[in-house]
Parts: sequence; structure tokens; C-alpha cells
Amino acid sequence: MPINTSALGATSEPRQRSWTSTDALLYALGVGAGMEDPTGFELQFTTENSRGIDQRVLPTMGVVLQASGLPLGQLGKVNLAMMLHGEQGITLHREIPVEGTLESTSTITGIWDKTKGAVVDTEATTVLVGSGEPLFTTRASLFFRGEGGWGGDRGPSVAVDIPDSTPDIEIAYRTRSDQALLYRLNGDRNPLHSDPQFAADGGFPKPILHGLCTYGFTGRALLHGLCDSNPSQFGSMDARFTSPVMPGETLTVRMWRTDQGALFRTHGSDNRVVLDAGRFSAA
Amino acid sequence: MPINTSALGATSEPRQRSWTSTDALLYALGVGAGMEDPTGFELQFTTENSRGIDQRVLPTMGVVLQASGLPLGQLGKVNLAMMLHGEQGITLHREIPVEGTLESTSTITGIWDKTKGAVVDTEATTVLVGSGEPLFTTRASLFFRGEGGWGGDRGPSVAVDIPDSTPDIEIAYRTRSDQALLYRLNGDRNPLHSDPQFAADGGFPKPILHGLCTYGFTGRALLHGLCDSNPSQFGSMDARFTSPVMPGETLTVRMWRTDQGALFRTHGSDNRVVLDAGRFSAA
Repeated sequence: MPINTSALGATSEPRQRSWTSTDALLYALGVGAGMEDPTGFELQFTTENSRGIDQRVLPTMGVVLQASGLPLGQLGKVNLAMMLHGEQGITLHREIPVEGTLESTSTITGIWDKTKGAVVDTEATTVLVGSGEPLFTTRASLFFRGEGGWGGDRGPSVAVDIPDSTPDIEIAYRTRSDQALLYRLNGDRNPLHSDPQFAADGGFPKPILHGLCTYGFTGRALLHGLCDSNPSQFGSMDARFTSPVMPGETLTVRMWRTDQGALFRTHGSDNRVVLDAGRFSAA
Repeated sequence: MPINTSALGATSEPRQRSWTSTDALLYALGVGAGMEDPTGFELQFTTENSRGIDQRVLPTMGVVLQASGLPLGQLGKVNLAMMLHGEQGITLHREIPVEGTLESTSTITGIWDKTKGAVVDTEATTVLVGSGEPLFTTRASLFFRGEGGWGGDRGPSVAVDIPDSTPDIEIAYRTRSDQALLYRLNGDRNPLHSDPQFAADGGFPKPILHGLCTYGFTGRALLHGLCDSNPSQFGSMDARFTSPVMPGETLTVRMWRTDQGALFRTHGSDNRVVLDAGRFSAA
């Protein structure tokens, strides 16, 4: 059954959530902050009471704080088990506070026919409850295998020319074999990331890392490499998921400076590309 | 000013707390569960939705779940900065549920004059709210430097004869350099375990691991070595803290079987004893 293309423009009900300082510490540890050297600069993300250091929040935490369910029910009877996370983006409108309450609203911004499947683009706007101040905008592209072929528009293809040259900055982070067990406490309890049997049924030799965990490690590298470790300098980050990552792999983030920010790519332990077409803008 | 020995027998107001499945997962990860091999048997402590595996709680979680403040106010004006955690014990009356609400009451059970300081023994009983069913009893001995010398009783000395022979069971666990950053999310946010400046002021080269984290790693070793990884076989565990542990050290737990359970000792990376006089009883 083809996807219901009239769902284009559908919007979710606004949804709220609150978060605490402890949630922010847990997120930071989940994407590897503090792992290399607990005496280093990451204490601002991993502790709330170090002398002379105010706690701050890693910018990519927005992708887990975002509160709205996607309005996917509007798409018709699609098989969510056939859904892949294609791209993820976030634009920060201000630094994320250490605690607070936010409200998110999602919209389906594109439905494209890729023949072998359909791509559904969504965008969520998130504001701080009370002030109504814009906090961040998140973008996700979802690929639904087997749902294409209705003769629709293929949509624009984003061409991102990652240079062949030596990167301006390269940062490598080791993930741990138990990384997904910790990262999942941020909310995504899909057993694909923890249960070996479930992962085997999906054709994986062992549970895979959350794509958004790889995204968070990459965001940390951009923050330290391009923003002087200062979240208020972090503007936006978009990238495409191209390969599953196994917990324990080393992630190497390569960055090439541009006028507005940088292009980047993240590689796994065997140097394959796991996050491609990366675009970063400074705030 | 001497310690107020009439505080003997003083009891705290009962205090309640609730905990969730997520709290139990976080505790397990904090004491290293799942770190060595996420496909191994520790999924019962680190996940709540692995197929065919019911989540269970590590027995030593009782020492962080225990809800009552110690009735230390009764001791007079003692300097809490001079307090050291001397011994810790726990007796499980039943397996700890994955979530629930408990109530604890603490009593000062001993005040002893060690000349250079005072030892205060406390015991807390914890029951499940609702049923009133006994859950666990915890014991802590606290050493107050500089508070002794009033000519009081030195108290009994517990002689534990750890054998010289080769241990029956030996289990080694690596702690991580960021272990304390994760463990502290269980509740003890003392910056001695995370802030390098604060630790330096206390005379430590870097932040030290929580004693109760070492205790939790040790309890995991006892559980896997002596209880077939089954919390319902875990009866009680007592031990004495003898040396600070630095995050990143490997902890080696040596166990000698006895009629009722085992004697044990935990060693740090350089083989010094960090937890001594260990006594374990099966349930």
C-alpha cells in the first residue's frame, strides 16, 4: 500500500517534557564525555558542582529532549519495522539550559518517492515553556523501505562535497563495548541496541550503537574542535547515517572549515564512513 | 570536644524513598555491570527488555537505596569533614524488587573510644512500604578522626582471619577512568570523587572512587563467583575500607569458601588491600 502523500504538512499535537541537571549529566556520559580524562575540560558537562565550573549542556542533547511524537499516523499503514533513520539535523536558537520544561511540535515537511522506498522529512520546533522562547529546531529524514514506487517526485538531493584534502581538524573518540547500555538510559530502549537475540533477528552480529549516540559523539567533536568547547558557539549540525556502528568502535570525526562553519564526516574503526554529508554552522 | 556518648541508641525518624527500574539499571552500570561483555549474563542487571530475561537488582544496591539519614546530630558538634567510612555491611532479607517504595530507620548501635578517634556504629532497617516486609539491614562504621580520648571503651575488635592460601575464586574487574562520574549519579555527589581541585585540597592526586563503588564491584564478584549470578542466593556482605581506590584501577576480589559462605579481600592494581576482613554469607 503506498504511503499517504496527503500527510504532507500534517502537524503533531504540541507535547511537553521536563528535564533535570542529572538528565544532562547522563546524556553527556552516554556520548562519551569525561571518558578520556576526567580531569579535563569536560567537567562542565559531566559535573554540576566542580569549583569554578558551571554545568552546561551538550548541544546535541536537543535530539533526545525533543518531545513530540512524529505525526506518522497520518502516513497510512506503514511498517515502522522497515523504517531507517536517514538524516538528522539540529539548529540551536539558544544554549540549552541545565534544566527546564520545553514544548515541541512536529510537521511532515516532505514525502518523496525513491522507488525502492519513501523518504519522509520531518521538522520539530521546540520552545521553552513559560517564556515561549525558541530553543531548537530538529530535522529528521526517515526512509521507509518498500513504500515507494507511486510515481511521485524523488525530491531534491542534497549534494555535500566533502573535500578529498587532509582535514583541518580530526578528533577520535573510543566508544565502549557497553556504550549502548548507558546511552539507552536517555530514553531509546529499542532492544536492537542491547539484546543480542533481538539484534541477531535483525541480521546484526551483535547489538548496534544508537545512530543518535554516534551523532552525539560527533557533536562533541565539533564542539571541541570548532567551538572552543563553548555550546553558545554551536549553531547547527546536519548529517546522514550511512552505516551501523558497533559499540567498542573508535569514531574519528574529520572536519574541513568553511566560511560559515565546517563540513564533516565520521568514520568507524575500519575507516568506513558512518556519518556522511556533515554540515556544521557556527552560531 | 568529646563525642556525646549518650547518643548511643539514638534512632532517626523513618524516611521513605521510591526507586525505578531505570535507577537499578544505572546502579548496575555504575558498578561495572555489562562492561566486560554486553552479550554476557549481566543483561539481567543492565536491561529491562531482553527476550527471556527478567530484570533483577544487584544486592549491593541496598546500600544506596537505604533512605535514612544517620542520627549523627545526636553526637554533638562533630566535624563531618573528619569522618571516614570504616566498614559497611548489608544483609538481604529478600531479593530487592526492580521498583518500589521503601522506608528506613537508623540507630546508633555503638560509640567506641579509639584514642585517636571515635568509632560510631550504625544500623538501618529497611522495609517495603505497604507490606512492611523486611527488605534489608545495612550496617556502617564511621571513624571520626580527633574525637577520641575520653577514656571510654575501645569496643570489640572483629578478628577476621583471611587465609594465606590460594583463593578458591578470584575475579578481576577493570574500573574505568570515568567510573566515579557515572557512579555519582546514584546519589553521592561529593566532589571528592569528581572535582580535581577539591580532591587536591584533600591531599589526593586526583578524584578518588566512591568506597561504595568498590563495595559494589566486590559484591558483583561475590554474586557471580559464589551465587551463580542469582541475587536470591546472596545473604550478607561485610567488609572494611582500608585504602582509597583511583578510578581506572583493576579490582581483584579473592574469595575463600567457608561453611556459611566465604571470606574475601579486594585488591587494587598494585595488589594493596583496598577492602579487607570481608565476610560473605549465602542466603
